Amino acid sequence: MTQEDKIYTACMIVIGDEILSGRTRDANLAWIAVQLNEIGVRLREARVIPDVEATIVDTVNEARGRFDYVFTSGGIGPTHDDITADAIAKAFGVAIEVHPEAVARMQARFGFGEMTPARLRMARIPAGASLIDNPVSQAPGFRIENVFVMAGIPAIMQAMFNGFRDQLVGGLPLRSRTIGAFVTEGQIAAALGQLQEKYADVAIGSYPFQREGRYGTSIVIRGTDLTRLGAAAADYIVLVRDLGAEVLEDILN
Amino acid sequence: MTQEDKIYTACMIVIGDEILSGRTRDANLAWIAVQLNEIGVRLREARVIPDVEATIVDTVNEARGRFDYVFTSGGIGPTHDDITADAIAKAFGVAIEVHPEAVARMQARFGFGEMTPARLRMARIPAGASLIDNPVSQAPGFRIENVFVMAGIPAIMQAMFNGFRDQLVGGLPLRSRTIGAFVTEGQIAAALGQLQEKYADVAIGSYPFQREGRYGTSIVIRGTDLTRLGAAAADYIVLVRDLGAEVLEDILN
Repeated sequence: MTQEDKIYTACMIVIGDEILSGRTRDANLAWIAVQLNEIGVRLREARVIPDVEATIVDTVNEARGRFDYVFTSGGIGPTHDDITADAIAKAFGVAIEVHPEAVARMQARFGFGEMTPARLRMARIPAGASLIDNPVSQAPGFRIENVFVMAGIPAIMQAMFNGFRDQLVGGLPLRSRTIGAFVTEGQIAAALGQLQEKYADVAIGSYPFQREGRYGTSIVIRGTDLTRLGAAAADYIVLVRDLGAEVLEDILN
Repeated sequence: MTQEDKIYTACMIVIGDEILSGRTRDANLAWIAVQLNEIGVRLREARVIPDVEATIVDTVNEARGRFDYVFTSGGIGPTHDDITADAIAKAFGVAIEVHPEAVARMQARFGFGEMTPARLRMARIPAGASLIDNPVSQAPGFRIENVFVMAGIPAIMQAMFNGFRDQLVGGLPLRSRTIGAFVTEGQIAAALGQLQEKYADVAIGSYPFQREGRYGTSIVIRGTDLTRLGAAAADYIVLVRDLGAEVLEDILN
């Protein structure tokens, strides 16, 4: 679905002490950023917060008011430190209860005899939420209003997202043109600032790199209109050649 | 320096459109998390925000009031999209001006003739800030009150942090004991919750993994007192063996 006029925004909330301790390196943020771009939703902020109820409640409540979509990952497993579902229920001021459909899905996997209290904990869902399918290990995520609550394990998070991505309404996808050359940021900075002023409807970013012992810069031009991206890119390529350099790479995404 | 009674907290703010677009995967958060643990500072939150002045101002002002230390990475280069220094000045309500010592350091590298306006931009520092040394490419970061402003390129960010790390005051370092075994979270969840209640002064986290086609769980016990970590770990190892499993790994950090 596409609604062209509005800009749709999102916030990603990564929940887990293990990310903040450095034990686990988050892989979900970069993945979801790319997916959201494709469906025309702009990831405007990401937060990494600990498994602390008050922090989850406050962060979710702030984010769901400020952004069109909020995605969370982490903290929906069976152990005592998995407190995300309870915190989300609290954030919305609703009860949390064992969801019959969630139980049924998990029973289909584990069998009735294996539905331990710990596993039953994963079937506790805030009242009014709808289930998010988990084709990997059955224990579902859930959606409540504009908040999508997913598992932290990347393979499960991705499967959950892919299950509901068709339900997300976005605007025009953000396209990007990336042009790399052995020019330094110092050499191009002034002209690049002028280029940004000339093409105010695209966003021009500049990222230095080092390759084969030489310094270079990748320029990323982002926008929804490919014609404007092309015009800004053409101007930039002239600039690179005027500096006696060649374009090393030119990628449209 | 160590001050044992107080718990020192920190927030990391990663600034850059390129992280939120998924183009670049942040490497600074995990690195700094580990460093802070070693000096007894707890990373309590991380935020990834775009190169938007109002967002940087609001985020820095909120964070510097809530945490003992705030670290930022990104947006201090020479191009038009590098707006972090200006935003920090605005957040503190101070002017931004070319810092003579910053110019001198950069001239020592580039030579006087090469101090282009773009490079001079990197010498603009909020009034009252002190410089953070950049041994890699000279353009300095800066510290203003409890906010440390660093480059986004990991090698430079790390060199900057290592230059001022001895100035950071921390509490007791957070130690961790990680114990992995082929037991599922479902099997141990109830007993683990009781273990957490028994050892309320340590934090017990549980992280499922899959290895050689089998499901297992890593338990991480965190705290400042090695004796308590050891006691909780011993109890947990009994639990693992009662389930007929063996400890696959047992790591003290």
